[in-house]
Amino acid sequence: MNLFDNVPTNLPSELVEVLAEGQSVRIERIVSTGHTTEPGTWYDQEQDEWVVVLKGEAKLSFDDGEPVTMKPGDHLLIPAHRRHRVEWTTKKEPTLWLAVFFEKVSGTFLAE
Amino acid sequence: MNLFDNVPTNLPSELVEVLAEGQSVRIERIVSTGHTTEPGTWYDQEQDEWVVVLKGEAKLSFDDGEPVTMKPGDHLLIPAHRRHRVEWTTKKEPTLWLAVFFEKVSGTFLAE
Repeated sequence: MNLFDNVPTNLPSELVEVLAEGQSVRIERIVSTGHTTEPGTWYDQEQDEWVVVLKGEAKLSFDDGEPVTMKPGDHLLIPAHRRHRVEWTTKKEPTLWLAVFFEKVSGTFLAE
Repeated sequence: MNLFDNVPTNLPSELVEVLAEGQSVRIERIVSTGHTTEPGTWYDQEQDEWVVVLKGEAKLSFDDGEPVTMKPGDHLLIPAHRRHRVEWTTKKEPTLWLAVFFEKVSGTFLAE
């Protein structure tokens, strides 16, 4: 199986595929073709999310800080409940994300 | 932070960096420059490992099956205790791996 195979170039909505899953972890491949999070809505997740862009380009926004532009290889940890949204993804080519959702180490992120 | 930055081309041993970590998950970036697992030894891990090659090329061997050649984008789930070794990595360029170690869903893999 190859991450770069079967990347659709035109999708009605984001394509999410679960690549592997464990007791408290989920690894997803996500393909966006110009998609953004619905205006006025935020992701507010129970789990931490580590995310990397492998192709394409995207911009994430946060309700508590500056937006982040992500190009291939750029990765980011989004702690649980840090409200964020996909502000923009390029329409020039599909944007391929790899996301790992997992349980944080108790207290670690709060203590930092 | 970018996965493709600061990739050394010549290393005395594999370079392992922890990118993110949770209660029962660890996300690592691994760089090999021709390294292999020490002859005669196997990895025998407590956790499942999902692994993808992002650059370079590698060959994994298993004590219970055929070897697998991995090129950029190729990914694989190695269940806990499936004995494996890195048989070969290319010397032409660094091989960049992303590995996610995690706890399996109880019984799921045994039941399959």
